[in-house]
Amino acid sequence: MNGADALCATLLAAGIDTCFANPGTSEMHFVAALDRQPRMRCVLGLFEGVVTGAADGYARMAERPAATLLHLGPGLANGLANLHNARRANTPMVNIVGDHATYHLQHDAPLTSDIEGLARPMSHWVRSVRSSDSVSADAAQAVVEARTHPGRIATLIVPADTTWNPATGPVVTAPAPVPRQRVDATELRRAADMIRSGKRTTLMLSGVALREKALLVAARIAQHTGVQLLAQQSNARMERGAGRPAIERVPFSTELAVSQLREVEQLVLVGAKAPVGFFAYPGQPSVLTPKDCAIHTLASPAHDLQHALEWLADELGVPTSLAPSTPELARPALPEGTLTAQAVMTALAALMPENSILCDESVSSGRTLFGFTHNAPRHDYLQITGGSIGIGIPLATGAAIACPQRKVICLQADGSAMYTAQGLWTQAREQLDVVTIIFSNRSYAILRNELKALGAGEPGRNARRMLELDQPPLDWVQLARGMGVEGTRATSAEAFREALRRALAEPGPHLIEAVL
Amino acid sequence: MNGADALCATLLAAGIDTCFANPGTSEMHFVAALDRQPRMRCVLGLFEGVVTGAADGYARMAERPAATLLHLGPGLANGLANLHNARRANTPMVNIVGDHATYHLQHDAPLTSDIEGLARPMSHWVRSVRSSDSVSADAAQAVVEARTHPGRIATLIVPADTTWNPATGPVVTAPAPVPRQRVDATELRRAADMIRSGKRTTLMLSGVALREKALLVAARIAQHTGVQLLAQQSNARMERGAGRPAIERVPFSTELAVSQLREVEQLVLVGAKAPVGFFAYPGQPSVLTPKDCAIHTLASPAHDLQHALEWLADELGVPTSLAPSTPELARPALPEGTLTAQAVMTALAALMPENSILCDESVSSGRTLFGFTHNAPRHDYLQITGGSIGIGIPLATGAAIACPQRKVICLQADGSAMYTAQGLWTQAREQLDVVTIIFSNRSYAILRNELKALGAGEPGRNARRMLELDQPPLDWVQLARGMGVEGTRATSAEAFREALRRALAEPGPHLIEAVL
Repeated sequence: MNGADALCATLLAAGIDTCFANPGTSEMHFVAALDRQPRMRCVLGLFEGVVTGAADGYARMAERPAATLLHLGPGLANGLANLHNARRANTPMVNIVGDHATYHLQHDAPLTSDIEGLARPMSHWVRSVRSSDSVSADAAQAVVEARTHPGRIATLIVPADTTWNPATGPVVTAPAPVPRQRVDATELRRAADMIRSGKRTTLMLSGVALREKALLVAARIAQHTGVQLLAQQSNARMERGAGRPAIERVPFSTELAVSQLREVEQLVLVGAKAPVGFFAYPGQPSVLTPKDCAIHTLASPAHDLQHALEWLADELGVPTSLAPSTPELARPALPEGTLTAQAVMTALAALMPENSILCDESVSSGRTLFGFTHNAPRHDYLQITGGSIGIGIPLATGAAIACPQRKVICLQADGSAMYTAQGLWTQAREQLDVVTIIFSNRSYAILRNELKALGAGEPGRNARRMLELDQPPLDWVQLARGMGVEGTRATSAEAFREALRRALAEPGPHLIEAVL
Repeated sequence: MNGADALCATLLAAGIDTCFANPGTSEMHFVAALDRQPRMRCVLGLFEGVVTGAADGYARMAERPAATLLHLGPGLANGLANLHNARRANTPMVNIVGDHATYHLQHDAPLTSDIEGLARPMSHWVRSVRSSDSVSADAAQAVVEARTHPGRIATLIVPADTTWNPATGPVVTAPAPVPRQRVDATELRRAADMIRSGKRTTLMLSGVALREKALLVAARIAQHTGVQLLAQQSNARMERGAGRPAIERVPFSTELAVSQLREVEQLVLVGAKAPVGFFAYPGQPSVLTPKDCAIHTLASPAHDLQHALEWLADELGVPTSLAPSTPELARPALPEGTLTAQAVMTALAALMPENSILCDESVSSGRTLFGFTHNAPRHDYLQITGGSIGIGIPLATGAAIACPQRKVICLQADGSAMYTAQGLWTQAREQLDVVTIIFSNRSYAILRNELKALGAGEPGRNARRMLELDQPPLDWVQLARGMGVEGTRATSAEAFREALRRALAEPGPHLIEAVL
């Protein structure tokens, strides 16, 4: 057994059996080891942003980390933007990054770079393997770190000689994840006191507090006490749809968020962060809650949020018999006429199957259309969490690998789609059940709006050259087909709903370019 | 004048009038400032790897830095892989990276990250602007750093409030670049002594020593003294073709390189690094020269290499009348039959116009075919310098922006092309005269070879899943058309040469998928 075999065996022993990969020469001994281990599923991404984004989508749905395999500093660098999103999503992930052989580093060969330095900003934990004898223990520690609640990015740098040299020690088994910590009784009583005070209180949820079971408890608390429920603006995963409490999210727009929160006197955080502006703007506040709003963190994302909510309900004397009201299943009429983002979301709510997974990177197009799916069949809803665009297609890819029995629907802005469109090829290769809907407005619409908000007047030539994608227009049908994914273009609501119906009915990946 | 205007004016005053950009909200005041300055040419890339790679190609040909405009940490992260190549190419570059407003950073909004930490591994110089009053001086310093010989990566982080607040000071003019330093007389005499000793000596060149004027001097030295000329394995730019001294490069393969260098007793470096293995392999050396080879650095890449060679020629008494022999213009017969990488290079040598710019990221396909263009019309030859794949298309894009009168030909491996294929859209938008030739072998051929070299036997399922790109095959014609670039597929030498002839004759971007 060499170091590469030990690494592979350690990951498998810890239950990590899926590896999203884009290997290079320095990882070739690990590739050979993976080749000897058919239990490990290796999924190739043709760009590292696909690899890390897919590992994120996988872990959000599978509730356990995937491994990634990346090639030296530049390979890691290409994956960093989606590691940023994963870090913000509290996603567990084990990155295996190859490096030159330890004795080769001193020669500063062309591909040499400061991999630890690159890894640190987007990782919670970084370690370089020193020898083939420690690779198993190092990998087991990486798994422990990744599984640390609420989920961490662990990056293990593996010099090539530590994979090809013999590994003499035993394969280390990473200890099982520890249970989540319960919230402190004092904090709990303080939250209960605040809610009982009669002041206008908002219970802000994120993380696993947005799963059905926790949401039902929160909804019972709200119904009994009059407290308002609200979700963070961005969340890794929400369980939504008919039969599950409908919960709004803090709006993206600073102005809308300030207006929505203006009467909140008390904010109790359950796995959520107190809301701040996504960006700063001249003359607008960074903190979105009113100045005198009392903010209390009942539970961090790492806590046992389900237990915290149950305990809080108990403390507040919420009757166990109280059944919270939840939205009924209601399918809207199919849209007709002009194809708009609203028509897309209406068709989706009308047609999406039970148990779908929605991956939302619709950016400006879908931002205000969250409510369109409150009454849709129950589904999971995954968002871009760190604002680093280019996660939609990879996220959908990883979710589909984790949940092969479920339909994945990716709501994808066109500008953002171009960052990691290579993920479509992985969907074709793995024949994943993903329907990608491109909101094709042929511009960085969000930026056009931002520029307008500056009062800069009509954009001139240079601004248009940087914000418009219409010269030439991207042809998403050809792009999809170029990567082996069946594509359709829709320019009317009727055409879109038919394309969607067909795409949902057929197995394998589809892309629909919704020309808005 | 606000900070953004001051930044823009400072760049223009320093002669930086081209900005490769992928902006976001935090850069919107800078976008508005650029919009007020039509002298700045703004070129949009739909992914940041295109932006930094194009800035590299631009600077290699224009011999002055371009600016890039990137959005926060993730935007910079996406550009890092090609910054790595640019750093290895000694390319001057000024990166402008937006950040949250200074007062907003403490709130850890979703897009917040350690931008300085991300920038440092791939930059020679990093600074964060502290206030709108210092932005001009900071930008001028960034230009000075970028222009420091032999060329540096300067990254200036610009918080949004330093762009929107008023800038009260004057616009700072970056001082003109200082002349390159001349080599030390002792080092020169030592090099001359080594060459005169009669031992087998190789003069290894890189950087500006590979331009025509310097090469002619080096060739005269070689002719007079019997010293061997050799270029580094990877070089930012070589002036080549008929009428210019033909010079071989150190082979990529460790085995071939060791064999080529095995009789070298002395190595004199002129802007080059002593050759080391691109990767390490078990049982193979890191240093490619023989153990007892004496290595002398006559000149670093920052030195005045032209002067160093002239001085050396003088010291060695090379007669000024000695004319070095250079290759004649010789066009090969057009290839026929099966389409191979050799056929592609033959057709290219037969048809490429005088003064072309070849951007080479052909990786395994073109690796041994350098000699095919020794007798081609004079041309510039730009390479991937840091081994970070995904530079070919961006490099060609930037070179075409710098040299609108010249035909750019990009020799592009298919696997690598997928990293930054978005650059094709920029070529279409700017109507650049670029012909992209995709070496479509539908695999990571380099890795297949590396795996074979391990003695791992025939690849099994997992290895094949990570190394082969044939399921599904990428359709480069559709991918190109999807981004507005005319595409053709060639499956025979005859079809290829006709497609190439047509692509070279017509203005604007073309792509030819050469199915090998």
